[in-house]
Amino acid sequence: MASKELRVAIIGYQFMGKAHSNAWSQAARFFDLPLKPVLQVACGRNETALRAFADNWGWQNVETDWRKAVERDDVDVVDVSLPQHLHHEVAIAAARAGKHLFCEKPMALKVSDAEAMLQAAEEAKVTHYVNHNYRRTPAVRLARQLIDEGKIGRIFHWRGAYQQDWIVDPEFPLTWHLRKETAGSGPHGDLNSHSVDLAHYLVGDIKTVSCLTTNFIKERPLPGQGAATFSAGTGGAAARGEVTVEDASLMMVEFANGAIGSFEATRFAPGRKNRNTFEIYGSEGSIAFDLERMNELQFHSRNDPEHAQGFRTILATESCHPYIKHWWPPGHIIGYEHEFTHAVVDFVDAVAHGAPIEPNFHDGLKCIRVLEAGLKSAASGRR
Amino acid sequence: MASKELRVAIIGYQFMGKAHSNAWSQAARFFDLPLKPVLQVACGRNETALRAFADNWGWQNVETDWRKAVERDDVDVVDVSLPQHLHHEVAIAAARAGKHLFCEKPMALKVSDAEAMLQAAEEAKVTHYVNHNYRRTPAVRLARQLIDEGKIGRIFHWRGAYQQDWIVDPEFPLTWHLRKETAGSGPHGDLNSHSVDLAHYLVGDIKTVSCLTTNFIKERPLPGQGAATFSAGTGGAAARGEVTVEDASLMMVEFANGAIGSFEATRFAPGRKNRNTFEIYGSEGSIAFDLERMNELQFHSRNDPEHAQGFRTILATESCHPYIKHWWPPGHIIGYEHEFTHAVVDFVDAVAHGAPIEPNFHDGLKCIRVLEAGLKSAASGRR
Amino acid sequence: MASKELRVAIIGYQFMGKAHSNAWSQAARFFDLPLKPVLQVACGRNETALRAFADNWGWQNVETDWRKAVERDDVDVVDVSLPQHLHHEVAIAAARAGKHLFCEKPMALKVSDAEAMLQAAEEAKVTHYVNHNYRRTPAVRLARQLIDEGKIGRIFHWRGAYQQDWIVDPEFPLTWHLRKETAGSGPHGDLNSHSVDLAHYLVGDIKTVSCLTTNFIKERPLPGQGAATFSAGTGGAAARGEVTVEDASLMMVEFANGAIGSFEATRFAPGRKNRNTFEIYGSEGSIAFDLERMNELQFHSRNDPEHAQGFRTILATESCHPYIKHWWPPGHIIGYEHEFTHAVVDFVDAVAHGAPIEPNFHDGLKCIRVLEAGLKSAASGRR
Amino acid sequence: MASKELRVAIIGYQFMGKAHSNAWSQAARFFDLPLKPVLQVACGRNETALRAFADNWGWQNVETDWRKAVERDDVDVVDVSLPQHLHHEVAIAAARAGKHLFCEKPMALKVSDAEAMLQAAEEAKVTHYVNHNYRRTPAVRLARQLIDEGKIGRIFHWRGAYQQDWIVDPEFPLTWHLRKETAGSGPHGDLNSHSVDLAHYLVGDIKTVSCLTTNFIKERPLPGQGAATFSAGTGGAAARGEVTVEDASLMMVEFANGAIGSFEATRFAPGRKNRNTFEIYGSEGSIAFDLERMNELQFHSRNDPEHAQGFRTILATESCHPYIKHWWPPGHIIGYEHEFTHAVVDFVDAVAHGAPIEPNFHDGLKCIRVLEAGLKSAASGRR
Repeated sequence: MASKELRVAIIGYQFMGKAHSNAWSQAARFFDLPLKPVLQVACGRNETALRAFADNWGWQNVETDWRKAVERDDVDVVDVSLPQHLHHEVAIAAARAGKHLFCEKPMALKVSDAEAMLQAAEEAKVTHYVNHNYRRTPAVRLARQLIDEGKIGRIFHWRGAYQQDWIVDPEFPLTWHLRKETAGSGPHGDLNSHSVDLAHYLVGDIKTVSCLTTNFIKERPLPGQGAATFSAGTGGAAARGEVTVEDASLMMVEFANGAIGSFEATRFAPGRKNRNTFEIYGSEGSIAFDLERMNELQFHSRNDPEHAQGFRTILATESCHPYIKHWWPPGHIIGYEHEFTHAVVDFVDAVAHGAPIEPNFHDGLKCIRVLEAGLKSAASGRR
Repeated sequence: MASKELRVAIIGYQFMGKAHSNAWSQAARFFDLPLKPVLQVACGRNETALRAFADNWGWQNVETDWRKAVERDDVDVVDVSLPQHLHHEVAIAAARAGKHLFCEKPMALKVSDAEAMLQAAEEAKVTHYVNHNYRRTPAVRLARQLIDEGKIGRIFHWRGAYQQDWIVDPEFPLTWHLRKETAGSGPHGDLNSHSVDLAHYLVGDIKTVSCLTTNFIKERPLPGQGAATFSAGTGGAAARGEVTVEDASLMMVEFANGAIGSFEATRFAPGRKNRNTFEIYGSEGSIAFDLERMNELQFHSRNDPEHAQGFRTILATESCHPYIKHWWPPGHIIGYEHEFTHAVVDFVDAVAHGAPIEPNFHDGLKCIRVLEAGLKSAASGRR
Repeated sequence: MASKELRVAIIGYQFMGKAHSNAWSQAARFFDLPLKPVLQVACGRNETALRAFADNWGWQNVETDWRKAVERDDVDVVDVSLPQHLHHEVAIAAARAGKHLFCEKPMALKVSDAEAMLQAAEEAKVTHYVNHNYRRTPAVRLARQLIDEGKIGRIFHWRGAYQQDWIVDPEFPLTWHLRKETAGSGPHGDLNSHSVDLAHYLVGDIKTVSCLTTNFIKERPLPGQGAATFSAGTGGAAARGEVTVEDASLMMVEFANGAIGSFEATRFAPGRKNRNTFEIYGSEGSIAFDLERMNELQFHSRNDPEHAQGFRTILATESCHPYIKHWWPPGHIIGYEHEFTHAVVDFVDAVAHGAPIEPNFHDGLKCIRVLEAGLKSAASGRR
Repeated sequence: MASKELRVAIIGYQFMGKAHSNAWSQAARFFDLPLKPVLQVACGRNETALRAFADNWGWQNVETDWRKAVERDDVDVVDVSLPQHLHHEVAIAAARAGKHLFCEKPMALKVSDAEAMLQAAEEAKVTHYVNHNYRRTPAVRLARQLIDEGKIGRIFHWRGAYQQDWIVDPEFPLTWHLRKETAGSGPHGDLNSHSVDLAHYLVGDIKTVSCLTTNFIKERPLPGQGAATFSAGTGGAAARGEVTVEDASLMMVEFANGAIGSFEATRFAPGRKNRNTFEIYGSEGSIAFDLERMNELQFHSRNDPEHAQGFRTILATESCHPYIKHWWPPGHIIGYEHEFTHAVVDFVDAVAHGAPIEPNFHDGLKCIRVLEAGLKSAASGRR
């Protein structure tokens, strides 16, 4: 086990705090790391909840002021696990304090914020990483490997969709996800940011964007106004507020290399729980992936014998597949949180060797630019 | 068996001539028809080939002049199985001669041609049908039934794609399919016409269209110029010509009912042989279909018990499923040509009862309008 | 088209009569045959029903006495489409009359009957064929081709099952299928005969058999005794009778070549409509097939690159796949009845060339032997 | 977090040591446990390797003598993670020392050993558990729930298989798995023990067994005798030894409740990496599962509307599914090691409440009895 330590401060302790804490814990147990991650300090505003979180995951200290946390001398890395609109302020301060940056996605609400984050990180010469975690699914990494080996050839098509169904019910309340001021956008930002990053990773840069967004449910009950809100005066109806982000987004793009692509992001696809799916078609073969079966990659090769061609289901759990030899034997699948562990493994390696890691703030910014262009196109109706 | 006859003239004897002839033969054998189809006359320009075709399929007479064929007194129905750019002239003449019209899809190259066809058919008060055959796949018909029963609810999304791979090889020659003057367009017209018709059938009218088309291979060898074309002067290269139709097309649409949809049509998707696939998501459930597994329909219901929800694979071969009781027992699947037989069955029924049939020339025209709007959008970059 | 004719007499006009008539009609339309099949005479006992059948399918004559039919001078082939227990008498008489034999499966109820049939056919030197139709599914034929090419290597395992669900309801009546005297056995004979023939075809001869059979529903309502059977005396209950054939059968076998195999045949598998599925595992690769997706073959090769191995779904609709070039373009699937057409095509070819065809009466007898050994093992509990 | 501790000694630090250590670590982080597991002592013979293992996983002490470890006063639970033939000695000693028992599967090599283990545990009144881990896959637990709810009805069929492919290569060496004295049996014990336990859990007790086993590769190279073993005298061939366990096993069984079942266990199924699959058919519906897609359960209901029946794929990642609400949101799948965590969670709960847990030593013994009967049947050829 590594003797030199890498001390981490995590800012934020909600859903992503859990996923990141698990990754920081598990990475050294399953992988040989050049530096030993230390869960140094957890930071949040609610001290009681924060302390329970820290106890559960083994964070050795707590801070309720994020500025103090990111400036501590005993911290090497700042893990930004906050809601998206708070990323840039924390990340910039951490960069200025000379900390390496492990930042949850999407990188920022706006292109200008992302640009400032990148500039700060570059000036501080720290390692910077944006956690588009699906790049580190073994099957996705295998897709990239097949592309790099020439097995797909010149790419013609990207066909992607990220579909969920958690707000189909019109009585689902108007949470912060559904308000522009807190969420920036709906699935276009939340889900398409994953898909656009994967398209960048697997196909290349995007040149033009056409986008279409819509709202299926315009108003929803205000949160925290359940059965208790009946009143004689209003006839019993709960108060409602306006949904100010889109419910679904479609995009068509041209890539710089001549490929074309489509994206769909929605929270209105009953039965699709977390379906992040893409198909890639090229001159030599094709690839298809579905996150709900994240251990599998579909691959078709035009170079197989003519009578024996077909999409094959590669179960990406062989020891020759990315990351897998550190886990379990073939056919023993891994799950969602393992991607975060892989990210920590690669991040620790990058820090130890002073090497860059992808996706970094350049990649994060590029993604935000495409999404922002998409929203402009949706408003104007133009490519 | 019906004693009254319905005498058919078929114009065209290529691929569609084969599929249509089979349908006219098989319909009365497997179904109880109110009129007995008679294969009265087959029409084509090459008399030798035509006669072999007629002998094979039992067409009782041949004609090499289509005008004569459509005006024969002993003909009730004209089956237009020609290439698309020849439809309107034949159909209009047949309508004026008082013949019922069974017309292959897409209805016409241009909106104006389709309008003239519709007008002629309406004036002649004949039964008119456009053979968007996939409407009569039992699984697709079942999809419509589930929608009509309210099992999908308010529709949010259409996600369609029609993918083939037969021209991925850059040495595939410049056949008539790849020239604008003969084909009108590429997969946008050929394949999207199927998808748009299905979207009309299952979701409703389309209000706005954004489209993106591209060419991956700009030049191809001229046909009929194989190994024999080497010449010292050109250094051995076969002569090449320009591809003047698109290789692939993407569309995003808004439906009149508030749903949004996407379409992809391509001949550059290795491994997809004839994949006409769509997904429909609504407030109560979802549907998915893939023509390569045309006997199956995927259906998800939000009204199943919460812990037992999932996409179910309905094998649409039960006697309660559309058309099936006339074929084989459950689990004995049917194939591509059966759709044509179903079309003949319903067409004969419509003629016998003087009732309209869908899709008719109204529907065919509506489809052409969307496709033409798509090409305009592709050129302008605007919705 | 062939000018020389091959005149067929069909004995039996029920379900198999329909499937066979269609095959005799379609074969010459889609394939180039060396002899032209002529639907000469149809034979059955109920003249009214027989005549309707003959009119529908174009059988030129009818006979109500099967002996006369099989002895007619204007008949070259006798197609035995009768229930299994009637096969041997008709087939033997037809052989003695010098007719070629196209016999529905299973060949006979008993080994001794099958032996007599084989002897009669051999002595008459006629072409004899048992219609184990699934051998002529293109995907199954492709499986054999892959095996012949060495792509599977030495075979270790056969894992087969034939599952249906049509008698799960205990109120399903006691039809002839469920009585030993008419059906011989239940799914063991009806369904396993298909599976055993496929195992013979793809793996090789079977050396030892262990079998287990059972009955889930011991008694059922007598047929034709619906709502009308209420009577005061019996308290309203419909009369019931004993089920005398098994409801399900399991078998374990050793093949002569050292492979081992398992078989399951049942009519008690809800949701499996006509699932005839098998898996074959060998030293170089594996194969899997499911009749409900009969256009597909799953194939895994140990010789693919290590990181890109997986079961691939071959859509067996390419023109290089068996029989397909006579039907439709790639991706346009075929159905159940096409197998019968393929059988006719190969049978006509065998007759024309005086060549044997598989599976013939040797193969049919071999199959009956295995099934009979299975029933003995089921009774004794011994291998 | 629980304040009262449950102190664990783990005996064995190989593959299962890793999986168990992870489970003891993760359980309290994701679940609310009534007792806090403490990784008190790890035990193994190689002190260097043991210490590295203990450091990695946080085991606070090490012991190289298992007797000392199981008798320590500061230990409440003994986790037996040793090879199968060592289970009974350690487990019996631990029981006599009053420790609760968490024992890896299969429980023992022989029925007599398992009986002694059960007796010791019962006499000591400790909690005893055999880690047939697949019972705690959420989808499998859901299968049991559906059965308990009556959604499958009376069960007719179990169709199971456990298939791997890691010794297909004849040059794979003669490791301890392939020798009877160390492994007891081959896949019959290793893999079928999983399947038989699942059949007991989901269908019920097994009444009769017929079994067939075989060897495909009789001799293999001795391990550790690679390229270095060439010698002039032997012509360069590596020394080989006899494989003394079976390579594959088939079983047919009758259950006490009238259902019948089949089992297949093999290491010779190319492309099947860890495919533990079963199908269950009953009077009301059916279930199918495949461990390679362990987050999914296939379910067919005969009570769905007739035209909308089919196998549905339940993605068992909803918060209403067993164990899931402690992990991630819907559609975020879990992996192999999570089953072990679930086992720890339920085991800790059982200890805290003095309640029994399934599968316990009764269940483990029952499983060994079926397997031993199978080997007898394989030898005799009798049911």
